[in-house]
Amino acid sequence: MFDKHSHPRDVRRAIRAGQFAQPTNGIAADYVQCNVLILPSRHADDFATFCERNAQCCPVLARSLPGDPHLPTLGEDLDIRTDLGSYRVFRNGENTGDVADIESLWRDDFVTFAFGCSFSFEEALVRAGVNMRFLERGDTAALYVSDIDAHSADPFYGKVAVSMRPLTPADAIKAIQVTAQYPDVHGEPIHIGLPELIGIAHLENSIEKIGRTRVMPDELPVFWACGVTPQLAVQNAKLEISISHTPAYMLVTDVPLTNLKRSEIPQ
Amino acid sequence: MFDKHSHPRDVRRAIRAGQFAQPTNGIAADYVQCNVLILPSRHADDFATFCERNAQCCPVLARSLPGDPHLPTLGEDLDIRTDLGSYRVFRNGENTGDVADIESLWRDDFVTFAFGCSFSFEEALVRAGVNMRFLERGDTAALYVSDIDAHSADPFYGKVAVSMRPLTPADAIKAIQVTAQYPDVHGEPIHIGLPELIGIAHLENSIEKIGRTRVMPDELPVFWACGVTPQLAVQNAKLEISISHTPAYMLVTDVPLTNLKRSEIPQ
Repeated sequence: MFDKHSHPRDVRRAIRAGQFAQPTNGIAADYVQCNVLILPSRHADDFATFCERNAQCCPVLARSLPGDPHLPTLGEDLDIRTDLGSYRVFRNGENTGDVADIESLWRDDFVTFAFGCSFSFEEALVRAGVNMRFLERGDTAALYVSDIDAHSADPFYGKVAVSMRPLTPADAIKAIQVTAQYPDVHGEPIHIGLPELIGIAHLENSIEKIGRTRVMPDELPVFWACGVTPQLAVQNAKLEISISHTPAYMLVTDVPLTNLKRSEIPQ
Repeated sequence: MFDKHSHPRDVRRAIRAGQFAQPTNGIAADYVQCNVLILPSRHADDFATFCERNAQCCPVLARSLPGDPHLPTLGEDLDIRTDLGSYRVFRNGENTGDVADIESLWRDDFVTFAFGCSFSFEEALVRAGVNMRFLERGDTAALYVSDIDAHSADPFYGKVAVSMRPLTPADAIKAIQVTAQYPDVHGEPIHIGLPELIGIAHLENSIEKIGRTRVMPDELPVFWACGVTPQLAVQNAKLEISISHTPAYMLVTDVPLTNLKRSEIPQ
């Protein structure tokens, strides 16, 4: 139905009309996709502080006004109550399941945070000529919880989640340079090559069952900070309610990917 | 006698006067140091082509006119016949030993090539906060001949030589970003982590006996293209005579290191 050439507005309209509820990777590839977290406004400032302190995990691209379901800087017609293909609802920190929309759950104190997501930098890597062999093998990025502590901001705390992509050494070197140019979608990797140093003893134990990601003998595992980190922190905070996107069902925005590219080297 | 704060002109004068003949690492650290190759002019254009085709190994910073011992863009008073602490003389591709100056060997058809050298990027790494633990352990970069073929330019051919520095994964990620900003001193690494993939089966077999470089369990070996590559190619070409610096006795120039830093990200 949709592909990399689709316009994000058309994708959102179809999702809103209930005509499209699938993972969004590879769709509208010229545009930024976002992780989403929605929580009551009385927690919003603390959560914003958590995000600031862990900017590589949670690069905030937009924050809504309380009760306002719109994020106009990400899409003029965007309505966060209907524009994700699937939502995950947490109560007291527990995952209570996925729902297709949140119109009936919406509250006038809900604040939405949208974060840069690694689907965007995967597109940048492909364009830079990085050979994403794991995608060709039918694998996807694997997700893990590392033993690195995120910087806490009471009541939000937890470990840093990471995504892993296996790359040849030459492609890993290129990928580090490319993703460093996109600080708003997690930036450069936080680890390479020795997963046991960040508390990952077994690469097969990915936290999301979205396909095994094998590391071939001529590849190194490369780890980026991951947008699952704020989800873990929100669960740890045991808020009475919070809502995220369902993994892989991202918010498709109208922001061109090129807008996020840093053009100058920081001194 | 000299340290990192010394001015390169003072260092060259002392070398020229026979008062200083030591490795130059750590000296005049704000300025670029160079690898040097001197060969008869009838081979100079072919050699320049070899350098162009292998720019990451042999980034040419200056080329002299035939018979002219000066390199004015690298230092106004610079005289290549006297300004290196030690020279290595090759005849028919064979190393015939090291000499303190080459005034008696100088010919009016000699052309000098000066290349960027990794001593310069080590200084840039230190300034960027990369923890060079191997230096603190008393080790230096190790040198190897990889199994990667350099691009040949008849009669010049050979394998790519590499220098290796062990770094923690986080420092390796930083080092890749920093050295990518210095394309004229070898730029970003060409390999990381899996030395057997580039024909290096045993890391202890460094080609220069300038100290063992140990890789600790929490470190990865990181490999950069090395200025020994053109020396190997010149040896393979079996020129009747060629002259290089003795390893670690580099040409200390007046060019500030900051001049080599790329300020814009290539698109």
